[in-house]
Amino acid sequence: MNRLSSGALILSIGEELLDGRVMDRNAGWLAERLRLLGVQACEMRTIGDTPGSLHALLAKLDGSVPLILSSGGLGPTVDDRVRLEVAAAAQGLGAPGHERAARNASAKQLLVEIPGALDELEAIWGRQHDHAVPRFFLDQGRVPAGAVALANPKGTAWGFAVKLPRGTRVICHPGPPVECHAAWFGGGRDQVEEAIGGAKEIAYGLFHTVSVPESTVEAKVRDLMEVGGNPRMGITAHGKQVTLSVLAIPEAERSAEQVLEAMSQELHLRLGEWLWGRDGETQAEVVVRALREAGQTVATAESCTGGGLGAAITAVSGASAVYRYGWICYANEAKHAELGVPMELMEGEDAPGAVSPEVARALAEGARRESGADWGIGITGIAGPTGGTEAKPVGMVYLGLDGPQGSRAVLRQQWTRAGRSGIQIGTVRDSLELLRRAMFSLPELPERRG
Amino acid sequence: MNRLSSGALILSIGEELLDGRVMDRNAGWLAERLRLLGVQACEMRTIGDTPGSLHALLAKLDGSVPLILSSGGLGPTVDDRVRLEVAAAAQGLGAPGHERAARNASAKQLLVEIPGALDELEAIWGRQHDHAVPRFFLDQGRVPAGAVALANPKGTAWGFAVKLPRGTRVICHPGPPVECHAAWFGGGRDQVEEAIGGAKEIAYGLFHTVSVPESTVEAKVRDLMEVGGNPRMGITAHGKQVTLSVLAIPEAERSAEQVLEAMSQELHLRLGEWLWGRDGETQAEVVVRALREAGQTVATAESCTGGGLGAAITAVSGASAVYRYGWICYANEAKHAELGVPMELMEGEDAPGAVSPEVARALAEGARRESGADWGIGITGIAGPTGGTEAKPVGMVYLGLDGPQGSRAVLRQQWTRAGRSGIQIGTVRDSLELLRRAMFSLPELPERRG
Repeated sequence: MNRLSSGALILSIGEELLDGRVMDRNAGWLAERLRLLGVQACEMRTIGDTPGSLHALLAKLDGSVPLILSSGGLGPTVDDRVRLEVAAAAQGLGAPGHERAARNASAKQLLVEIPGALDELEAIWGRQHDHAVPRFFLDQGRVPAGAVALANPKGTAWGFAVKLPRGTRVICHPGPPVECHAAWFGGGRDQVEEAIGGAKEIAYGLFHTVSVPESTVEAKVRDLMEVGGNPRMGITAHGKQVTLSVLAIPEAERSAEQVLEAMSQELHLRLGEWLWGRDGETQAEVVVRALREAGQTVATAESCTGGGLGAAITAVSGASAVYRYGWICYANEAKHAELGVPMELMEGEDAPGAVSPEVARALAEGARRESGADWGIGITGIAGPTGGTEAKPVGMVYLGLDGPQGSRAVLRQQWTRAGRSGIQIGTVRDSLELLRRAMFSLPELPERRG
Repeated sequence: MNRLSSGALILSIGEELLDGRVMDRNAGWLAERLRLLGVQACEMRTIGDTPGSLHALLAKLDGSVPLILSSGGLGPTVDDRVRLEVAAAAQGLGAPGHERAARNASAKQLLVEIPGALDELEAIWGRQHDHAVPRFFLDQGRVPAGAVALANPKGTAWGFAVKLPRGTRVICHPGPPVECHAAWFGGGRDQVEEAIGGAKEIAYGLFHTVSVPESTVEAKVRDLMEVGGNPRMGITAHGKQVTLSVLAIPEAERSAEQVLEAMSQELHLRLGEWLWGRDGETQAEVVVRALREAGQTVATAESCTGGGLGAAITAVSGASAVYRYGWICYANEAKHAELGVPMELMEGEDAPGAVSPEVARALAEGARRESGADWGIGITGIAGPTGGTEAKPVGMVYLGLDGPQGSRAVLRQQWTRAGRSGIQIGTVRDSLELLRRAMFSLPELPERRG
């Protein structure tokens, strides 16, 4: 009888997690990767750097769970002990000592070099330091005897996977999220697939909406979210973005992919223009791709978002084909001098003021005109926390859009509970959605009144 | 003899955490709150909603740890079982059944009403529904017999605290982060203070560096990081920012604050100009404050960061006093038309090219000249992943700075392992640091060669 119960334990290692200095981004990410392979995490744990604690935990868990995926504790500092403690546990030895001499002796005894890794580490050290490379830095290129190394092209610490005496497979990833991801794709995933005998047939999709509250989205799909149903659906909200996750398995005569696609069609029927994208896409990626396909360009004139829209667009590789000019016109003179917004719109007793539909429109038109782009987006608003008045409270934002068919839209958004950062991020989201809807001739985005 | 070891266990409850759909924001937050009261979390765990699993875990942990702080599992859904399972564990009874009838019988037996809470919950239900309020909704206003209720003005689910038979105190918070915070301040914190006999005297500080590798910072302070020392120091790296955390307690004749300040002075001696700020500050906040105090302004001309520097500056409330103009000049024509960069610098066989010290300088000078600002920052580089050549690889970035004493600096940074986003974020960090050093007449930032 196999004593191992199903599932995986996800282990996060680091004092900085335990005392709340750093938020753990790896446990959830690894859990999601596991789920896509059909493996459910049964528990997550976070432990600190106390010498011996990892070793004791592994000895206790060995044989009770088939997989342990860890992150953290592999980097170039003296207190990273994961390699040594896992190696000792894998060989059924006691915990290695933590004094420097004992540590070095254990490392010599328990770890083996990954072919070629040490030369590379020495070269990296040499570019940044004048003195000789220390042992603990090189240990990043060593793994427990009998372990499989996991490549980490994003950092210096290699991951590894090894089996404990009673059969639990331990797969160790570095702690920085990009390095954890790199090691997962550099071999961690293969280890899990090997352990479960190949990936199960599963199809998974994410469906994103924006600028509509979670409760509104949920009301439209609540009957589809039945517990135990196939596909299994979840809903999560992050800022203005609400995402539905759909996990499908095969059933009757339909493949997992077919179950997923049937749900995808149902969601498109119910949510229509609210759905802007799927899976790992960002809003800016969708917009940049649409612009590329249309052979069009966009220019931006931002006041209260201060460059956030430009940064979102240029976060997309290849944005230079569709985005050439942007202005950050925080001051009224900048709006006037750079984008031709008339001063009399902004200043004077009877003027609409800098935060007004007129100025949003003039900014959009100015950005389009000055750049020669096909589309111009103008943003003006009060991000707060100061600067609001009774007539123009903090959170009032106007978005203007000028395009091939003329000045299409001026949208007013009123934020009431978001802070400065929430207003700025949400406004960038709204402006991308404004452009997407215009490009695809979808209904205009409704105003938000709080 | 007290069997309880010191520390606290932080428990997160929910299937949505275990399968990676939702990132746990509560465990780290609670850990930090505990630390500021002088309590160290010894472990974090995340479990799902399987009936009986919480009850079994509490029975196992009771007596081995003085405090368990949980979040999740208290809301208005039928599968929230935390109240019942904690109540059964507190009374030394077995796990309650999970069929509806058994569940209702257990609730009647184990839970008591919080005075006044049920009327309020009925009123809330009545505003949103036409049918009678169900038992599980009202259970949000009930707590285990003998428990202390924790107020939650941000939601409908009350938290509570209760002692298990062998002395472990369990403090349960709702899962949504704002409600978890509300219940902490609504009584959770008092429970911890009562358990530890009042808050301890503690002083805590964070010290930030940028643009220098973690290993370099660590080498300068390694001897101060002795395990068990006072103050206790930790190091964390996030992108290009390395942060030292210092937690001090009183000793001999010095208060915790004095211990912290002595270490602060030592860190300033050792790290000097590398330390740009303290505690919760951002780099942009430090720069905006310095500009305000000097009565100066800055303008930006960004190519490869695409507005990210402007967005960082305008994330600071009050930035409008020091930041009035910015340009996102992604295309060469934009650099020329808006900032006067000569086309012959950028195009043609013998030209230095758009990514060159000459263009970084011209962008900085252009931004300063066109805006009339005291300082101009110019950024040009190749964020990748495409667009690199052998002579100008992906990750090559030039930063230019023009200021009151003339064109101060052109800095070359070469990134080798960061991706597009890492290069963009790191370049924004470097450019803020370039300006800070110039304003305070500190040594120039060294070039980064990989």
